[in-house]
Formats: sequence, structure tokens, C-alpha cells
Amino acid sequence: MTIIALITDFGGKDNYVALMKGVIAGIYQPERPFFIDITHEIPPQNLFAANYCLTNAVAYFPEYTVYVAVVDPGVGSQRRGIAIETEENNYFVGPDNGLFTGIIESGTIKRVVELTNPQYWRVSQPSATFHGRDIFAPVAAHLGVCLERIPLSPASIFWNLGREIAPDSLIKLPINQPEISPTAIKGTIQYIDHFGNLISNISGASLGDKSWRVKVGEKVIAGQKTYSSGENNALIALVNSEGWVEVALNGGSAQEQLKLSIGDNILLQFN
Amino acid sequence: MTIIALITDFGGKDNYVALMKGVIAGIYQPERPFFIDITHEIPPQNLFAANYCLTNAVAYFPEYTVYVAVVDPGVGSQRRGIAIETEENNYFVGPDNGLFTGIIESGTIKRVVELTNPQYWRVSQPSATFHGRDIFAPVAAHLGVCLERIPLSPASIFWNLGREIAPDSLIKLPINQPEISPTAIKGTIQYIDHFGNLISNISGASLGDKSWRVKVGEKVIAGQKTYSSGENNALIALVNSEGWVEVALNGGSAQEQLKLSIGDNILLQFN
Amino acid sequence: MTIIALITDFGGKDNYVALMKGVIAGIYQPERPFFIDITHEIPPQNLFAANYCLTNAVAYFPEYTVYVAVVDPGVGSQRRGIAIETEENNYFVGPDNGLFTGIIESGTIKRVVELTNPQYWRVSQPSATFHGRDIFAPVAAHLGVCLERIPLSPASIFWNLGREIAPDSLIKLPINQPEISPTAIKGTIQYIDHFGNLISNISGASLGDKSWRVKVGEKVIAGQKTYSSGENNALIALVNSEGWVEVALNGGSAQEQLKLSIGDNILLQFN
Repeated sequence: MTIIALITDFGGKDNYVALMKGVIAGIYQPERPFFIDITHEIPPQNLFAANYCLTNAVAYFPEYTVYVAVVDPGVGSQRRGIAIETEENNYFVGPDNGLFTGIIESGTIKRVVELTNPQYWRVSQPSATFHGRDIFAPVAAHLGVCLERIPLSPASIFWNLGREIAPDSLIKLPINQPEISPTAIKGTIQYIDHFGNLISNISGASLGDKSWRVKVGEKVIAGQKTYSSGENNALIALVNSEGWVEVALNGGSAQEQLKLSIGDNILLQFN
Repeated sequence: MTIIALITDFGGKDNYVALMKGVIAGIYQPERPFFIDITHEIPPQNLFAANYCLTNAVAYFPEYTVYVAVVDPGVGSQRRGIAIETEENNYFVGPDNGLFTGIIESGTIKRVVELTNPQYWRVSQPSATFHGRDIFAPVAAHLGVCLERIPLSPASIFWNLGREIAPDSLIKLPINQPEISPTAIKGTIQYIDHFGNLISNISGASLGDKSWRVKVGEKVIAGQKTYSSGENNALIALVNSEGWVEVALNGGSAQEQLKLSIGDNILLQFN
Repeated sequence: MTIIALITDFGGKDNYVALMKGVIAGIYQPERPFFIDITHEIPPQNLFAANYCLTNAVAYFPEYTVYVAVVDPGVGSQRRGIAIETEENNYFVGPDNGLFTGIIESGTIKRVVELTNPQYWRVSQPSATFHGRDIFAPVAAHLGVCLERIPLSPASIFWNLGREIAPDSLIKLPINQPEISPTAIKGTIQYIDHFGNLISNISGASLGDKSWRVKVGEKVIAGQKTYSSGENNALIALVNSEGWVEVALNGGSAQEQLKLSIGDNILLQFN
């Protein structure tokens, strides 16, 4: 069983995601692909949010998954289309524009290919504005079909997709790194979720057993273990389920109350 | 064929639903799960809306469906995680917080277990903030795999999931019940849908063949049979497809015109 | 492998789409249907948007797909429910209200039936307000099951669904056609997508190799090849991936900047 996991900024109102799935289904037949949508609500052209949602998803999916990521402001320009294979036997297909920063930084990339072989595209003259449909979806489909055929083996067609490129030539996003001192960590908000939780770039793994508090805007908030350990409508800080330090509001949206945005500072201090 | 039917308040912008699906797919492999999303747009932490959408869905799904419901404001607290099996051979997995009020009131519960056995979880130390991913999704997956293996038989692993608890110990939401007299029924709005239809808690089954009208706010509206039997932009009242008395606006949103909310009164009078 | 492709205006917050899928899954069992959602975010009752999204999707799906389209303001009235079979071996199920205008105009319809046989419905007395769940979904499921059974053959049950009707009796939407002269094409905006791209009803195929510009509101914009060929935050005009002339804003929303709506004029002039 190979999953085709899709992540885009296409939203839900148009037929764009469906066109990709239709193309993939056509290549799979008479078999069926198995789709899981990671999200299609990445804010338009927001590579940082896409990288965050993709990177944090991989650990929860089985190996031999093919990830298709299409957030592609440079479509039609000289930016490369790529496929990546990792040591963990996962595949990533999409534009080389920073979308795969987290995958690159994981240090698990085994081989990378630039998608130059139109034999694996929908048409040899793809649309200049929708490589998701014309290149990335069909390449993912061919990888998926290949992986289904010989389970638990790397995709034999990988090198056929185009020409090898060096992993260290791939584009990376300039992601903020926290500044760590013995008494404090200066971080930023890297993502804000549907609940208005403010997710920092400070890893909970770096906190050990020490107790801590965070300062965001004018507020100082003590670190806790769970959402429900605070009072209703109280701000709380905790290490979230992905392992990041997060500020939340019990029974409400921390973003709405604090009016903070991605990139804003968050200071963690040890008690 | 076992359906894994998911209902959450996670929204579409993050990867949270996908993480649950990835975890389930990993447990199923080499087989594939079959997912149907009931909705992920339950308003954050709104147990009433979730109970409504879940309860009203069950009749339209085949038996041996596993429902995973995650609207979980008390995650990480002492609230129990549970699995329910019904006489209709359906399974419900989620927090014991009222989400399953409609299932409980249907009187069809056969057995209930508190999820205390970490053998069926993703990890033995689950995240304090995402039991959907770490407990409920994996438990649902194990139930689904079990049901696929011996079709049309109850899940043999059920008792293994934890310790038996009494159905009458389950938490129920304080749901408004209409007041019924010979000439009128006093109800409230229990749900407002995407079209702005105001759905009351008055059952159409109680109306018999009598003709009737409803009063909401200052408006009096005669009961009709279909949306299209009113004029365009006219308010209409009818028994909707789920069997509830509803106020709608032809070609528009009754909610926008009437500015009413969940919990507001609706008075039905027989003519 | 038969795809059940769904398009509705039901949105994501309710259980309505899931009810249709549950009904279909029940008819398929012990097999599984294979669903692809085209979109459920058609603006309420907007037949034009639904026709656009459906018509433009078909070319990207494999044949023997069953399309279920439910945008149905006249549900419960005398409007007919229909199933269409095309020369391309596709099936369309839904109300006869203009939703299938593009399919009709493609000239590929082989046979059409009015859905009058309740044997293929969920119940013989369907809800007056939700034919999607009670008629169209079950009819699509029966077609799908039939197509799965004898792959690559037309659905043998087609005539059983009801009584034959003439393709030229089907309802068509009054869709604006562009006015073409040797020096210019007067069109209108037929669709606005998630990115705020303004998609006209002017076909790129009619432009040949000539260079051109468009006038929308007070703006004159030169025709280009790709999104990325303009500067950031510059308006651009191009032929989009579906073949329509479109106005876009690099790194933003043309709709937000230009404040234009569906139906507004767009004038294309050859240089």
C-alpha cells in the first residue's frame, strides 16, 4: 500500500486538487491510488507554512509514501521540478523552492532528480501555470504505481525521471533559529493553527525537566503540561504534540487575544 | 468493507486530520483503510454541533463502521477515552465528554470500554494534547483491521482495549428538549447549516398531518413541503431531510436575514 | 476502477457530503467505492460556477467515471432528475437545471434518462429537500457498481433508471459568449478562483500567435506566458492552464486589487 499524500495552497473552492487526483487515477488504472490530503489550505504561496505542515507530518505516515507538494509561486520560471528519495524510503515531488527545507535538514536524503523527462508527465508541453497537474501529479503517480508493484522496494524508475542533482544544491528557506542561552531562549512564532495556537520555533526537547515561562507581547505565561490544566479563557504555554513550545488560550484563540503574527518574538525563560 | 468515519473540529488548514489518517494507514498496512470524513469544520470545541452532525449521520452509513470523533476540550485532563459498540454493530471512539449523547440516547449501546490499554495506542506515553492522533486514531484502526478480517462479526479485540464501564456512566450533553402541548411546541434552534438554514429541535414526526406555522423572532411562517414551494427570497418553514422542523430562506440564508443563533426560541403552532 | 466524482454546494461544515458517501458505500458493499471530490465549495445555488468547475474537470479524469453533481435550488419542484451517458463513456447524475450545460454543449451525449425508477433510490419516498442523498447518490452508486462489474463496458442498467428523454430537451444555462471581431474580443469574467484570478470566457485557442493585451476596468495589461514573467505585485494577463484568458496579480489577488466580479467585462485587443 502506497499513500499519495498531497499538500497544496489550492484551497477548496476550485477543481484544482481534483484535477491532480484525476490525472493520478488515470495513470494508476486499473488499480486505485490511495490519497491522503495533508492540507490544501496553505495560505497562497506561503512556503513557510507548507514546509511546516509537510515536515511535521512525515513522522506519522508509513514509509513508501509519495508526497506531492505544490505551492509554486515560481511556476513557469526557471525553478526546477524535483523528486527526492530518502533513507526512510519516502518520496517527495514538487518544485525546488524551499518547500522541502525540513526534509533537506533532516539529513536523510538519498538521491534527488530534476524532473526533465517528459515521458512521465501528463503531456510533453505542460501548462506554464499548472505543473502540479501536468508534471508533479503524474510523476507521483508513476512512482506510486512502481512502489505498489514491488512492495517495500525503492522505486526502480527513480533515475528515469530526469537527471541527478546534488542534495546540497536544493533551495532552503531562511528559517528563523532560536537563540539559546543558559537562562533563556529567544524564539519566534513559526506557525499559527486553526485553533489560534501560537506555535514557536522552540523545541520542547531542549527544555529538559526545568520549569519555565514565556513572554509574548506584554504577557508572561507559566509553562504547563496540557490545555486543560489552565482555567477557562486563561493563556497557557505548553509543549505541543509536535514537540514545539506553544501559547494557547483555554476555550479560545490565543491569536485573537494577543494579536500576534508569524515571525513575532517569543521569549522563554527558565525559572 | 469497514468505513473509518472521522469527525473533528480540526478545520482544514493544518495537518492534524492527516496525522490521524497517516497513523491509521500505518496500522492497516499492507491493507488500506477506507476513510469517509463526516466533517472537520465543527466549530472549535463545540460538542453540541459535533453530537448533532454525528448522530444524524449514522443512519446513512452501513453497519460495521468505526466512527472516530475528536472534539476534545478536556484532552489531558481526567476525562475518559472510550470505545462504544452498539446493537447495530457500529463502533464509536473518542473522549467521554458528551460527543456521543445521541448514540447514548438511541438506547442501542451494547458495551463500552475505557481505553486504558496502551498496546492499542500509537505510543505508550501519548501526547497530553493530541489523543486523537495518539489514542483514538490507533484504536479505531485496530478495530477496523479486526472488522475487515472477519466480516460481519463483532470486533473480537473489543474487551482488550481497556476496562468495561457502564453505559449509564457516560457523559451526556444537556440538550434542550421541546415543550409539547396540544396546540403548540416550544423548541429551540439546535443547529445552523452551511446554507443558513435554522434547524430546530422539533421533530417532524410529532406533527402528524396537521397544518402548522412557526414563529421565530417577529416572523410567522407557514409550514410547507419543499424549499421551492416558497417564492424567491421568502422565508419558509418545513420538515427537513433529517426530520427536523427548519426555517429556510429561498435563494438565501435565513440566518443572515433573521440574525438568530443556536439556542434561540422557535415556536410551532398548529393551525 | 470507477471513480465517483462529487461536486456540490454543500460546503464543509455539515454532514451532507458524508451522508451521500455513506449511502453510496452501503450500496457498494462488500466492495468499496472510490471517491474524488471535485469541490463542495460551489457558492450556494450557483449553477454557473458548478457548470464551470465540472465541465473543466472532465478532460483530466479517466473514462468510466460517474459524476454526481448536486447544486439543486429547485429540489422538490417539478425539475427532473437525470442521468447522462456520453460517447466518452462518462456518466453524469444530478438535477436537470443547467448544471450539465458544458456537457450538453460538448456534443458528446449518447443517451439521457429521467430518474423515475425508485428501485435505484435510497427509499421510494425520497426527502423533498435532499435528492442528492436519496436519489442521485444511490443512482450513481448503482451505476458505479455496474461499471466495476464489467470493466470498460457501458452500464447495462442505464435504461432501467427511468424513461429516455431527448438530449435537446435538457436545460442549458444562458452562458455569455464573447463577441469576436478581427481586432478585439469582448468577453466577460466567467469565474474567479481561490487565488483571485479573474478567468474570462475568452478561449486562448482563438488568439493564435498574435500578441494581445486586455482591458479590465481602467487597467490595460499586456498578455504574457506565465505568472512569474511579471514583477511581484504586477497585474498580468495570460492563457491559463484550462485554456482561458485570465487576469492575475503576481503574489496577490487580482480580484482584491481590481474589485471585479463574475459577469464584468474584459476586453481583449490584438496589438
